[in-house]
Order: sequence, then C-alpha cells, then structure tokens
Amino acid sequence: MSINFKELANKYGTPYYVYDFDYITNQYNELKTAFKARKSLIAYAVKANSNLSVIKHLANLGAGADCVSIGEVKRALKVGIEPYKIIFSGVGKTDDEIRQALEFGILMINVESAAELDRVEVIAKELGKVARISIRINPNIDPKTHPYISTGLHENKFGVDIDTAKRMYIQCKNSDNLEPTGIHCHIGSQLTQLQPIKESVQIIADLVRNLAAIKIELSFIDIGGGLGIIYDDEKLIDTNEYAQTVLETMFGLDITVVCEPGKFIVGNSGTFITKVLYEKVNGEKRFVIVDGAMNDLIRPSLYNAYHKSEVLNDNKEFSACNLVGPVCESGDFFAKNVQLPKTQHNDLVAIYSAGAYGFSMSSNYNTRGRVAEIAVENGEDRLIRKRETFEDLITLEEEFIK
Amino acid sequence: MSINFKELANKYGTPYYVYDFDYITNQYNELKTAFKARKSLIAYAVKANSNLSVIKHLANLGAGADCVSIGEVKRALKVGIEPYKIIFSGVGKTDDEIRQALEFGILMINVESAAELDRVEVIAKELGKVARISIRINPNIDPKTHPYISTGLHENKFGVDIDTAKRMYIQCKNSDNLEPTGIHCHIGSQLTQLQPIKESVQIIADLVRNLAAIKIELSFIDIGGGLGIIYDDEKLIDTNEYAQTVLETMFGLDITVVCEPGKFIVGNSGTFITKVLYEKVNGEKRFVIVDGAMNDLIRPSLYNAYHKSEVLNDNKEFSACNLVGPVCESGDFFAKNVQLPKTQHNDLVAIYSAGAYGFSMSSNYNTRGRVAEIAVENGEDRLIRKRETFEDLITLEEEFIK
Ligand SMILES: Cc1ncc(COP(=O)(O)O)c(C=O)c1O
Ligand SMILES: Cc1ncc(COP(=O)(O)O)c(C=O)c1O
Repeated sequence: MSINFKELANKYGTPYYVYDFDYITNQYNELKTAFKARKSLIAYAVKANSNLSVIKHLANLGAGADCVSIGEVKRALKVGIEPYKIIFSGVGKTDDEIRQALEFGILMINVESAAELDRVEVIAKELGKVARISIRINPNIDPKTHPYISTGLHENKFGVDIDTAKRMYIQCKNSDNLEPTGIHCHIGSQLTQLQPIKESVQIIADLVRNLAAIKIELSFIDIGGGLGIIYDDEKLIDTNEYAQTVLETMFGLDITVVCEPGKFIVGNSGTFITKVLYEKVNGEKRFVIVDGAMNDLIRPSLYNAYHKSEVLNDNKEFSACNLVGPVCESGDFFAKNVQLPKTQHNDLVAIYSAGAYGFSMSSNYNTRGRVAEIAVENGEDRLIRKRETFEDLITLEEEFIK
Repeated sequence: MSINFKELANKYGTPYYVYDFDYITNQYNELKTAFKARKSLIAYAVKANSNLSVIKHLANLGAGADCVSIGEVKRALKVGIEPYKIIFSGVGKTDDEIRQALEFGILMINVESAAELDRVEVIAKELGKVARISIRINPNIDPKTHPYISTGLHENKFGVDIDTAKRMYIQCKNSDNLEPTGIHCHIGSQLTQLQPIKESVQIIADLVRNLAAIKIELSFIDIGGGLGIIYDDEKLIDTNEYAQTVLETMFGLDITVVCEPGKFIVGNSGTFITKVLYEKVNGEKRFVIVDGAMNDLIRPSLYNAYHKSEVLNDNKEFSACNLVGPVCESGDFFAKNVQLPKTQHNDLVAIYSAGAYGFSMSSNYNTRGRVAEIAVENGEDRLIRKRETFEDLITLEEEFIK
C-alpha cells in the first residue's frame, strides 16, 4: 500500500483508521470472478466494517448485504443496496426487526430457530405479507478456528439441525405467509482450510436436493462468509479453488450461490494508525504506550488476536516490548512481546489488518471518543467518519442532569 | 431492591440498564464514614460508570473524581465537581490532555512514567503553570484477581518502581513548574483480600516518610480503588477494617487519604434488563436468546466474568442453558450452563451487578444502538440516557456518502 500515513496523521490527527478502497475493489472482484460460472450474489457482511462509505463503495461494485440487525439493513438501504440483495441473518431478531424487514421487502430472512420461524409467520400474517425464508443449517462441523468465532458446531447457538430444518421448510411450504427461498450455513470466521467448508456445503446441497424431491424448490444457497486473511503468515484458501469446490457440490442444481464475506473483503484494506506517547520500562518489561487503545481495537484483548504492528521511524535498535494503550486495564494492549525499534514521542505506529471488526467493535470506554475513519481511493484521501468530540459523547445524557 | 423491572420495561423498552441511586448513596456514605478519623477524599472512578447523572449524584454527596482521560475530567466538571477534587490518572496522557488538565487547575496529575513527567514539565512551563504531581507506584504485589484487572505487578504497564519514583519526586522538587503533591497506587480491581492492599499501602506510606526526610512533603496519599463486590458468593473485605488498616499504615503522617472506588460504589447498584426472544435446542444444548448482547455488556465475553441472571417469570421448570444474545459471535453470551426456568417470548431476564463496567464499555457492534439508562431514586424512576436510534449511529458518517 502506498498510503502516506504521516501525511494523514497531520491532516486528520491520531488515532485513525484508514481503508484502501482500491484494495476492497480488488477483493470483491476476485471473489465475484471466481464464481463467474454461475449466478452469484456477494452479500457483504456489514458487521465487519459498517461505515456507510465502505458499504456504498461495495454497493457500487454490485454487492449485496448480509445484515444481522435492522440497523445494518438500514445502512445497506441508505447507501442504495437494493432490497432484493439484502439478507437479514442472526439468532435473535426482535418482532420489530422482523416487521421492518418484511416492510422493506428484502430478499430473505435467514431464520435460525423453529421458534423464530413461528414469529416470522405470525408477523407476516399480521402484515398480510409473504416472508421469503432461508434457514440456517448448523452442520456440526469444526471449522478449526478460535472458539469465539467458530459457529458451526451444535454446541454453538447458531442455526438448526437438518431434521429441524426439514420440518421448518415444510411449514413454510404449507403456510400462506412463508415462502421457502434459501438455505444457509456459516461455520466460522478466519477459515484457512477448505475441507470443513466443503463438507458443510455438501451437507446443505444434499438437503437442497432432498427438498426438491418433495417439491420444495429453493432459489439461493448461501455458503456463508469466513474466508481467512493474512494477519501473520497464514496460508490462505485459494479463492478459485474455493469457488470451484463450492460450485462442484451444486452440480445439477439450478440455484444462485450467495456468499457473505466480511473480513476477506475489508480486513486487509484497513490500518489503524496510532501515535507513541511514551516509552517506559517496568522491571524487565519495556512498554511502548500509544494514543490508541482497546476501546478503538478490541481484537487483541477479546480474542488474543495477532495484528502485525510497525513503528514508522528509521530506528534500527529493536527490542522486545508490549505495545499498549492508555486505558486503565492490563487487557489494553495491541501486541505483547513484539520486537519494535526504540521510539520517540509522536512516532507513528501502524497496526495492520484492522479493516474488519476494528472500528465496528469500538466503544467509548474511558470516555474516549471514537476515532476518525479515512478512505483512500485512486490516491485521494477523504474523511468518511468524523472523530467523536466530547459533546458527541454526552448528547444523549446531558439533558437529564439535575 | 424493590425496582419494578416490568413496569420500567413497558415504559422505556428493552434492553435497559437501571441504577439504584439510593444504593449508591449508601455505598458512598459507608466508605466515607469508614475513613472519618482522618481527612479523606472519595474520588469516584468515573470509568466504572460515566453517566453524567451518576457522577452528578456522587458530586452531590461530596465525591471527587478519579479520571483517566480528559473526557472523564470534563464529565466531572460538567456536573459540578470542583477542580480541586479531580485527579487525572492513566498511563498514556496526550499533550493536549495534559494541557487541558493544567488549564482546568485540577487537584493533581497522577504521573505514571519518567517520560510523562518530562512532558508535563515541558507543557507546564509553556503555560507558565505549576503542575501538582502525584506519582503512581507499582508496588509489584499480586492482587490475586483476573490478570486483565490486575495492575500492580511489574509485568503490568502501570506506575513506576520506588527508585524511579524517588528520582521523579526530586525532579519535581527542583522544578519551577512541578509540585510534588501526592502518591498513588492501585493494584487491581475486584479485590477480596486485604493483605495485598495493606502491603502496597505500607510501601507507599514508607516512601512518604522517606520523602519527608528529604523535605518533600506530600499532601495526599491515594490508595487506589479496587474493592470487590458480590457477583456470586464472594466474601468481601470489610469496609471498616479496610479503612482501619489503611489508616494505621499512615500513623504519624499529616496527610489526606484519597481512595478511588468505582465498582464498590456502582457495581451492585445496576441491573441490566433484557427480554427473551426465543428458546432453541441445538444438539444437547439449550439456548435462551435475549435481545441484549455482548455489545451492551461485554464482561462475560471479555473477562469470562460471572453475572447472576434471573428470569422474571413464575415457571419452576429449571434446566441448564446458555443465556445468549443476537450478536453473530459465539462469544456473545451472558452466562453458560446456568439453571434457568423455561421461558416464553417477552419474559424479562435480569442480569445483576451490572452497574460497573457495563454501559461504559458498551459499543455499537452489529449496528445495535446503545440501550437506555434509567435511575431510580426514592422510588421514582427517570431516564438518564436516551436509547440510541439509527440516526444517532450514522450522524458522524452520513454526510460523507458519495
Ligand atoms: C452469518 C455470518 N455470515 C458472514 C459472516 C462474516 O464472516 P467473515 O467476516 O469472517 O467473512 C459472519 C461473521 O460472524 C456471520 O456470522
Ligand atoms: C487507577 C485506578 N483507580 C481506580 C480504579 C477503579 O477500580 P474499581 O472499579 O475496581 O474500584 C481503576 C480501575 O481500573 C484504576 O485503574
């Protein structure tokens, strides 16, 4: 990437997130092209990075949206993604969310339990609508990733088993207010092995065939997201091989393939840039303290996730240190025992692979305003989200002081 | 507590946080009274719960504020806490934060490294001010709590060792722009044993005496926060014994004692109320899915923290389940393997001990608006923070869509 982080720091202050929109374009196109042998919809998983300009950029490329709250659906609609390209997933949709999703007329509601299907039916009836239904299958397959981002085992809260799914499809078929439309599975995030994906897609493709035999014809097979990216030295799944494998399982089916990548599209487009405040040594331990913190990027604390970090100076004197933020918790760190050069006050530090689950998980903990977000496209930078001010933080509570 | 959670749910919707302000009053008074033998300042740790009305309530009781960002300092000032009762702590203060703290004329800046002291001196000089300095000592004592909330070991980023502190105090004494004012230590959160506190306070009291011998007279000894509360069946430190022990170590010193409780004051004042959406069974596992999620209360995910939960219905059919939210992560849970009764759509679930590090750590992950906060005082309820709307979430990025 040829982004001039220093220039951006001078212009927008620190910390900030910057996203390379050209990279996003390439990732999207790579995946879309891999599936070119068949009708496909790349439904971007909005949760990964929900900035409106990011979604808009993907909308312009033709992407749909995989949403997990009505808020995400509204984001997608806001930037012009057509309702027929929007999927609403998630294990816990409220009545109000279901109602709005039906009113927006989105492509399908991805249902995750029998109880939820009943609610959707009741609400669709009330509204005099037909709800297009996709059912998330829990294939009980170990995706071999971090337990927090593994979602395809029975011990996880996601989806339903095959038998339950069949009953639910039959309920759809027999209902005036439900239409069986799609099938879905997603076994986890940061997947680097093709085999578990292949197995789970085989399971749902088989189910599609079984359903066809009883005259339930689905139009969409949604293989989920989860394609891994390089944080460190991961060996990735080849995109073409991935598409090939998936398409092979669908042999003979007249069905559109949907996939819901989040991290693959935006993860390595993003960098978090923070500034060195101080160095200190406690006992044997060297600490580099920066102005960004766990409230800005929680993945290291929450998942013990690795993000490559680099000090943007010319110093060659490297030694081990912990790279930490100002938040008053020992869990506030970006990296532990990394080799970084000696730093000076105001040196910049880049934390890479921060485009997914970075800003979108950020908070105001310690009354820290959320940082600015910047897009770079064709060599031009622009602000896509303003840095939060103190006033922004208190606006919903100020009037109640008494 | 005699709060009518159902009535509040009808009035304000779910999920919500509710805080018992009378409980806060009692906790504050209990601690203040325990220290009555000496001049004391209870500086509430704003990070625990930063709602302006909560801070205002404590301000009315006479509390000061322990702040870890200039945003927190501004919150304290906003509700009328006098600058001379405000302390600014934290390992990573930016130049701008230091500047503003000096301009506000707060009680003292709690410095955590030699490099930081240099910055404060430079900035104070620029402003023609004298900065009142407290130094955080890292006593290298194991507080016997969760590693993420343990802060008093050398391997933690906090504070400086005794020798460094001495040199820093001498620097203060010799500087026209620094005034040695206080001493500080805080060894961790959720402390349930008195011994580590006693040892660390002894260490800093000894240092106070050593400094006095070289004519550095400090006015404040800040013993930190960290008093544990009952989440489950913890046996707590007795408040009087705590005060007694602390005061004994200060024998013969003419010094004001400061303490910085957060959780002790607000932790058990707060309850998070969420509504059942669905039940489902995956394999052998029963899941109760509610409308609250990890973005609202992250402690279970982040620290594997236990919060007692209770379904507010009359059902007596209990069985084991996971209590989970709608966020698309397996890490989105409130409780695992808890015994809860069979639930119905719309039953309320109370998650207790949620007054500290609950709302203040909450985020908009999955484009979920942050929930409403409610105060109950003298049997009256009132909103103290509005529920976030979709519009609130996009206001800082909307204008940049193109
Ligand atoms: C149902 C579903 N689809 C797609 C995704 C996106 O995953 P990733 O960002 O790893 O591609 C997730 C992530 O949690 C998900 O739960
Ligand atoms: C310096 C300092 N003081 C006080 C507190 C408050 O701790 P507690 O809420 O456990 O009392 C903390 C918590 O992290 C802290 O870091």
